[in-house]
Amino acid sequence: MADALAELAAQLRVDSIRATTAAGSGHPSSSMSAADIVAVLFQKYLRFDFQHPKSPDNDRFVLSKGHACPVLYAAFKAAGAIDDAELLSLRQFGSRLQGHPNPHVLPLVDVATGSLGQGLAIGVGMALASRLDQRPSRVYVMMGDSEMAEGSVWEAFDKASHYKLDGLCALIDMNRLGQTGETELGWNGEAYAARARAFGWHALTVDGHDLDAIDHALAAALATAGQPTCLVFKTEKGHGYSLIANKEGWHGKALSEDQARDAIRELGGERHVRVEVRKPEAGRPGGKPAAAPLKLPRYTPDEKVATRKAYGDALRALSDAHPDVVALDAEVSNSTFSDELREAHPQRYFEMYIAEQNMVATGVGMAVLGKRVFVSTFAAFLTRAYDQIRMAAVSNATLHLCGSHAGVSIGEDGPSQMGLEDLAMMRAVCDSTVLYPCDAHQTARLMAQLVDRPGITYLRTTRAKTPVLYAASEEFPIGGCKVLRRSDRDVATVVAAGITLHEALEAHARLQDQGISVRVIDLYSVKPVDAKTLRQAARETQGRLVVVEDHWAEGGLADAVLEAFTDGAEPLPTVKRLAVRKMPGSGKPEELLSAAGIDAQHIVQEVLAMKDASVSTGAPDAPRKRQPGKPAH
Amino acid sequence: MADALAELAAQLRVDSIRATTAAGSGHPSSSMSAADIVAVLFQKYLRFDFQHPKSPDNDRFVLSKGHACPVLYAAFKAAGAIDDAELLSLRQFGSRLQGHPNPHVLPLVDVATGSLGQGLAIGVGMALASRLDQRPSRVYVMMGDSEMAEGSVWEAFDKASHYKLDGLCALIDMNRLGQTGETELGWNGEAYAARARAFGWHALTVDGHDLDAIDHALAAALATAGQPTCLVFKTEKGHGYSLIANKEGWHGKALSEDQARDAIRELGGERHVRVEVRKPEAGRPGGKPAAAPLKLPRYTPDEKVATRKAYGDALRALSDAHPDVVALDAEVSNSTFSDELREAHPQRYFEMYIAEQNMVATGVGMAVLGKRVFVSTFAAFLTRAYDQIRMAAVSNATLHLCGSHAGVSIGEDGPSQMGLEDLAMMRAVCDSTVLYPCDAHQTARLMAQLVDRPGITYLRTTRAKTPVLYAASEEFPIGGCKVLRRSDRDVATVVAAGITLHEALEAHARLQDQGISVRVIDLYSVKPVDAKTLRQAARETQGRLVVVEDHWAEGGLADAVLEAFTDGAEPLPTVKRLAVRKMPGSGKPEELLSAAGIDAQHIVQEVLAMKDASVSTGAPDAPRKRQPGKPAH
Repeated sequence: MADALAELAAQLRVDSIRATTAAGSGHPSSSMSAADIVAVLFQKYLRFDFQHPKSPDNDRFVLSKGHACPVLYAAFKAAGAIDDAELLSLRQFGSRLQGHPNPHVLPLVDVATGSLGQGLAIGVGMALASRLDQRPSRVYVMMGDSEMAEGSVWEAFDKASHYKLDGLCALIDMNRLGQTGETELGWNGEAYAARARAFGWHALTVDGHDLDAIDHALAAALATAGQPTCLVFKTEKGHGYSLIANKEGWHGKALSEDQARDAIRELGGERHVRVEVRKPEAGRPGGKPAAAPLKLPRYTPDEKVATRKAYGDALRALSDAHPDVVALDAEVSNSTFSDELREAHPQRYFEMYIAEQNMVATGVGMAVLGKRVFVSTFAAFLTRAYDQIRMAAVSNATLHLCGSHAGVSIGEDGPSQMGLEDLAMMRAVCDSTVLYPCDAHQTARLMAQLVDRPGITYLRTTRAKTPVLYAASEEFPIGGCKVLRRSDRDVATVVAAGITLHEALEAHARLQDQGISVRVIDLYSVKPVDAKTLRQAARETQGRLVVVEDHWAEGGLADAVLEAFTDGAEPLPTVKRLAVRKMPGSGKPEELLSAAGIDAQHIVQEVLAMKDASVSTGAPDAPRKRQPGKPAH
Repeated sequence: MADALAELAAQLRVDSIRATTAAGSGHPSSSMSAADIVAVLFQKYLRFDFQHPKSPDNDRFVLSKGHACPVLYAAFKAAGAIDDAELLSLRQFGSRLQGHPNPHVLPLVDVATGSLGQGLAIGVGMALASRLDQRPSRVYVMMGDSEMAEGSVWEAFDKASHYKLDGLCALIDMNRLGQTGETELGWNGEAYAARARAFGWHALTVDGHDLDAIDHALAAALATAGQPTCLVFKTEKGHGYSLIANKEGWHGKALSEDQARDAIRELGGERHVRVEVRKPEAGRPGGKPAAAPLKLPRYTPDEKVATRKAYGDALRALSDAHPDVVALDAEVSNSTFSDELREAHPQRYFEMYIAEQNMVATGVGMAVLGKRVFVSTFAAFLTRAYDQIRMAAVSNATLHLCGSHAGVSIGEDGPSQMGLEDLAMMRAVCDSTVLYPCDAHQTARLMAQLVDRPGITYLRTTRAKTPVLYAASEEFPIGGCKVLRRSDRDVATVVAAGITLHEALEAHARLQDQGISVRVIDLYSVKPVDAKTLRQAARETQGRLVVVEDHWAEGGLADAVLEAFTDGAEPLPTVKRLAVRKMPGSGKPEELLSAAGIDAQHIVQEVLAMKDASVSTGAPDAPRKRQPGKPAH
């Protein structure tokens, strides 16, 4: 057995070298340090059905140090899940074996890694989901020692012990060398172990090139109840090839063909060992649980209801209907109103405390195991997890984010608490959905769609109570918008969403008093955006758009509106953006909306200015001629 | 003395209550838990000249738990730095006393806080800068226990011990209660202390309402050499008023007027104690150090040089010329090329290891003490620190960020390593500067301007080597652009920057071969953007713009271009954006540029399509009529 393991480990090293040398780039040395650990894990501990990689009964293996993926791909080859030809396609255009693991193309991995320090938090989510479903599957997360400097790692250590996740095992490949030199703690394994213990873990230091020692350590992890286990493996970067083993300057470098030949000779040549990974025992049936009828909240027209409250109400309703809906919050559930789910279904609410990075990555881990995950905090504090959100998109994950307390309209708490860049941040996420409701019924209706929406979704909510504008029966398709005011004499279109929609309606009323009509559009779907309706409005309102948003001028509502006009087929209308442009302070919401120039009064002024500009320059105050071109779609 | 301290502490509580009740909102209970610690610190330990709050000789006090600012403002009042009337203006529009501390308006504080978990990293930067300047000033950071869940805190713990910052003292106000209930660790002070010790700190648990004990603990911190000290103070939230002391449900709630009267009575009434804060001894003279002549790097026209290499070269040159230039990097200095500064001036290079959040906040702390700070990592990984970047802007800090390895053009490493949202993220930072050079000389010239530029600046660099396009003498004003190709017969303008500028030039050449002329603009200044030149180009090239960028379609170059046309005064041109729209994979740079539709061939196709669209619909292929309006500025 020991011989077979040694052969397997040597093969993983050889194949890591072969693949990276064929690619001409990659991380052989970081793969070689981990090879013995991976060999023992795959041969003796991991329970995984390669025919059904997504089965929730499988153990999970997360390679947090994603740059070491050659050793993972080599293990997949040894397990018969990929063939040698595919192994050698590493990093080539169109290959499933990318430079870092990516489930967009390779279903054998659950999540994308490569931005360091995220794997353990994902593992926390997987372990929480497995426990929730009463499955015995275990979660192994292999980490590099360099990534132990990331705070997100310690957020995950903290949460894993808080939730007593004894199914979770962290495997630290302490190979001493980072990209530019020695790590902070070098080979001081006891220092890592002491930190892990202080954070509530069972921790052991282990010789990472002693196959028996690795075996015993993994057995010890398996036998540990009530707390997660951290195994700190002392390893050598590049172990197995004397030219590079434990030497600086070999991070992220493929060997030349000559070096590769030399290394493979030193490692005893190519092999064709096959590892028989054990399948898990079949657990509870998977698949979507049965849904109860959805009873969305209803409000009366004379109520004032904050959209954040409607979020909580709808979340509660969704969790009543769907047993797979869970919520995570960063210790502000009584502000975001996710506490409504907590009260109704406490076992499906996960308090993540003030650790937003871990919260988002943990949500990704739960989503991998089929949970429909709603994650909430202040919009401003989601910025803390932008890398995790970005990587969730690379992971092809479905995750529903909600950011409350958007914009200057929160008032007295001041700019540190104001989400003013969240639309920019969330629009720039691959295939994301970005919604910004203005009333309670709209919020609820959008939530009912989000629960079935794939990808990264974002709902922006408002602190203040706002009037209920819509009937409970009104529909709000994602990708649509609502034309709330219109006439044949509209001199401009005001595009708004959320809190500014109410300012736009007030501006409409004041302009009506002066005999001036404007169109008002509620652009609740910021991404995707309703290009057709926006184009029609531009055509019918003299090519004048005023976009007003409680957000920085960059990347938000106005940029979303302009998207509708940048297909290269027709000129853009005249657009004026009213947005937050200087650092706000504390004050009453209405004072801050006015100071930012995004309240009703400023909208009125802007409409009048656009109208007067045309008059004073002699331009006809009539529908602007369109260039002949493709019809608006 | 003890009596005077007790009186002062009572006054801080009373004034925290008075201010928040007058405001009708705020955090009295979180202020009251900290009052005794603040009283002892201000009366006996802090050395601070309130006439010269920015003096580098001052000790620094960072209130990381920024929501407890009433107790800080109350201390400022006791020190005579603000008067009682100003104290009672808390949270009002226009007041310097915002809901969270903000140096935009209140110079008595160095940095903005309110997004939790950032203060200690800022303190690390202050301590590093003080040591660099050989000043004996100390740094005190007061933290809440809830924020100990933030990973960024542990990044700072790690760095502080790594750099043996014995001038740094963390004061943890362990009041047990968070916003929604008990914290993870409750009153388990030993758990916090054990974590701090495992991270290399001297740590003590202390009764936070025993003035003598606080005094002794602060003295012990002062006496500790070779490592930073963490004092874990056991306190009661709302201590001093029996109605709310140690009770749930009182986070962020002002007392009613009746409750306030009752509380103040229980606390012994209003007082007018004055605390005489000791001034520091005058240290070395401050001010800007003398600069040597700047010798920017020069390249030859036949070279290919990556802009990231030019960044390193220029950073080295700037650090030779300016003794106050420092660099921080997250363990990728041999990729970003900040290692050039490290080699030249090792004492001014700070290895921050893979902990981007701490790196950015530490940079803010160093900037407070007058350093000109250059912070670099991969563009993708700056997303990890978006909250810190956002807060740096609220802090009114000057910080120079560089993100390397932007876009799909990095090639084989795949999407986890590709900065594709960095322009969106950095444009949506208040008053930021965003630059994206395409060649080495341009990079160097822009760096020479950035070093004197206030605010948050961002330079985006490219992994690949690219041709040297410009002469060393060429000037590149921030807010400008370069028209690289132009003729009287241009049928469209291609706007590009960085890597795509080279594709645009190639497209120009191919179109010339077909007898078609296009204008090519190098939009190296993404924010601020050169509206005048863009408008002129639109007017002169038949109103057709093709914007091509190695970035997601949202928030990047195209949105920056559209800004030039949204002052509401004139109709916009026809715009087509070529950008990354689906998840890229691994591959050669040219394969990925092609797959994303942003290479020369796609630019050529797009120009031809726009031209043909006009022809086929019978639109005149001639300059488009402009609406009469305001002249382009």
